[in-house]
Amino acid sequence: MAEAQALVLGETPVLGAESVPAAQALGRVLVEAVASPRAIPPADNSAMDGYAVRAADLAGASQESPVRLPVVFEVAAGGDASRTLDPGQVARIFTGAPIPPGADSVVRQEDTERDGGQVRLQVAPPLGEHVRRAGEDVRAGEEVLEPGMLVGPAHLGMAAALSRTQLAVRRRPRVAILSGGDELVEPDGDTHGGKIVASNSYSLAAQCRGVGAEPFYLGIARDDPADIERRIRAGLGADVLISSAGVSVGEHDHIRAVLEKLGCAIRFWGVLMKPGYPMVFGRFENGPLVFGLPGNPVSAMVTFEQFGRPALLKMQGRTRLFRPTLRVRCGERLSKRPGRLHFVRVELERDGDGFVARATGNQSSGVLRSMTRAHGLLIFPAEAEELAEGEQACVQLLDDQVLTEESSRL
Amino acid sequence: MAEAQALVLGETPVLGAESVPAAQALGRVLVEAVASPRAIPPADNSAMDGYAVRAADLAGASQESPVRLPVVFEVAAGGDASRTLDPGQVARIFTGAPIPPGADSVVRQEDTERDGGQVRLQVAPPLGEHVRRAGEDVRAGEEVLEPGMLVGPAHLGMAAALSRTQLAVRRRPRVAILSGGDELVEPDGDTHGGKIVASNSYSLAAQCRGVGAEPFYLGIARDDPADIERRIRAGLGADVLISSAGVSVGEHDHIRAVLEKLGCAIRFWGVLMKPGYPMVFGRFENGPLVFGLPGNPVSAMVTFEQFGRPALLKMQGRTRLFRPTLRVRCGERLSKRPGRLHFVRVELERDGDGFVARATGNQSSGVLRSMTRAHGLLIFPAEAEELAEGEQACVQLLDDQVLTEESSRL
Repeated sequence: MAEAQALVLGETPVLGAESVPAAQALGRVLVEAVASPRAIPPADNSAMDGYAVRAADLAGASQESPVRLPVVFEVAAGGDASRTLDPGQVARIFTGAPIPPGADSVVRQEDTERDGGQVRLQVAPPLGEHVRRAGEDVRAGEEVLEPGMLVGPAHLGMAAALSRTQLAVRRRPRVAILSGGDELVEPDGDTHGGKIVASNSYSLAAQCRGVGAEPFYLGIARDDPADIERRIRAGLGADVLISSAGVSVGEHDHIRAVLEKLGCAIRFWGVLMKPGYPMVFGRFENGPLVFGLPGNPVSAMVTFEQFGRPALLKMQGRTRLFRPTLRVRCGERLSKRPGRLHFVRVELERDGDGFVARATGNQSSGVLRSMTRAHGLLIFPAEAEELAEGEQACVQLLDDQVLTEESSRL
Repeated sequence: MAEAQALVLGETPVLGAESVPAAQALGRVLVEAVASPRAIPPADNSAMDGYAVRAADLAGASQESPVRLPVVFEVAAGGDASRTLDPGQVARIFTGAPIPPGADSVVRQEDTERDGGQVRLQVAPPLGEHVRRAGEDVRAGEEVLEPGMLVGPAHLGMAAALSRTQLAVRRRPRVAILSGGDELVEPDGDTHGGKIVASNSYSLAAQCRGVGAEPFYLGIARDDPADIERRIRAGLGADVLISSAGVSVGEHDHIRAVLEKLGCAIRFWGVLMKPGYPMVFGRFENGPLVFGLPGNPVSAMVTFEQFGRPALLKMQGRTRLFRPTLRVRCGERLSKRPGRLHFVRVELERDGDGFVARATGNQSSGVLRSMTRAHGLLIFPAEAEELAEGEQACVQLLDDQVLTEESSRL
């Protein structure tokens, strides 16, 4: 299992870059350095509403012996700071407004008393008091955003502040999704006569979108090499091709034969895991990676989790490719035969500082309902035969809602 | 701080429902129960490739003394199961194919040897062996998806399997975003003369999108009541109105006066937090919730985190409203004056089983760069004056990448 995963990631390329409107960069990996075209803040400015002063004028000022000076002009945020303050003068100033030439400090409003055209200043400010220096946040030319950063809201605020309306980020992978099998119909199709809905295409597309990939759908291929080939050809321009074969060996064989005919080099076929044993991985030269996933609904989702998800993240330049894992206590005894690694769908419940894990009912790989309630996948190691109640185990976390707080910790 | 947060959530309504194409329901809260129109699987079917048999015919069969029976027909997945198997006959069957009438068990291919029109069966299967029962996953009429569920990939797979192409989910909040201040320009505007970019609109819009809300932009209001009023009126149809006032008190006062004139009931003004003290919360009767956020970039983001984010999640029917919190060790001494709760932007680093937190440089509320590197917000309680190096503290996690694994745990 670990070997198969390493092989997949070894074959997975990091995709190229594209320039997008900044808002579309959210959640993507930056591929360029962004330097500031100017200092931020652009000029020395006031951190308070109050009066711009020359500190030297106020030596010895206090509440008991205020210094009285004329207010010669006013500077608002966004206003002009070209007028110079002469010795013995002060200027009314507002938060964010540029410090006028000549002034060196700000006395906040609370430490003053206005009296017509004059003001009584009741403190002797240290030089530079309440002045935010130009370039305090960012110096002109400084690199603020770096290649490899995952773009979040703060990065978009910063990009806007740097007048960047486009950003170069890693491309999103396009994923072609194919279902295969004569027994399959679309959700609005007729299910009489033992037909079943090709639901894997819908869960897999959602899994792709959940990691930032762009899925598109190749439809349901009949168990007919010509139909399979026609559909796979339509997906050869994608970065990844995911087929969820029907459940029978014959369908797998058809798809495999077409893949090989079209030039796909099969890297492995079958992984010692459950659910998901009959999983195929291959690659077209100058074409998509290929994941041939099992037809059982849970198998398809779990193999995507273990192979498709980290590969799609790597393609986007991400470096953290794996789900968070939690050490948990088993809430019940689990047993299996040795040989395959099992992924047990579990619900998690807080238990003191930790979590206790219990299987979500029927673990048959056909029973998708077990996934709708699963908070995570418990790793039941390949050679283990039993996990005792109370024993420690490792869970891959599918649903980070489990970690979020039910009440505010403030 | 906690009182203000509780007051905001107390005033926050849960929004109504809308029916959307199933794919668009991803990440949203279901408001309807979805029952299955049929059993899943729809009929008893084979879990293996092999032969459908009557178990009674194979009593005593073994590798040493196989039972030889005629293969009278074949059933494929998606095929027809109307033909009946008589005693002493078997049918070739593939995984997923319906069990034909008369048959009761399946012998897998590996335990057989084909010989022309006959097959040697080398095991005596227990009754029902390798048969998946109709309704094993879902019984007809059973409720599979429940109101309140957060729709993930498995739920969409399940909905498809139940032939549901539309789902009723909570509506996404529409959020009107307003910037205010004569000193502000758009990212492509001229920043000469001390103008600064209205970057808060961009970080706030991204924060809204990050929690599933739909932001739209009301532009930059000048410090002029008529302009402010015109823009606020354009946002009255939204579910939430977020203004990020300019930095000066005068701008706050203008916006507050217009809000009150238009009928907004101000619930509080000022919260004992840093950054973010000058934060306003109000509500229009039959209109939007109003968050008047401070103009400083970090203050705007942090107040959104504490008030806007949980409110927008509650509106969407979510019940887990708060970020995960981690207990961490302080990597350095922190100090402040008592009175306000401080949110310290910190980077987290793994340290044995836990994490150590260090402030991301300059903590000035104007320095947005501190947010681009922050993994979380360390809660420095209101009355505390010091957190010693090595002391335990609580961090709200902004970036769950910190929890994800650098290497696979398989």
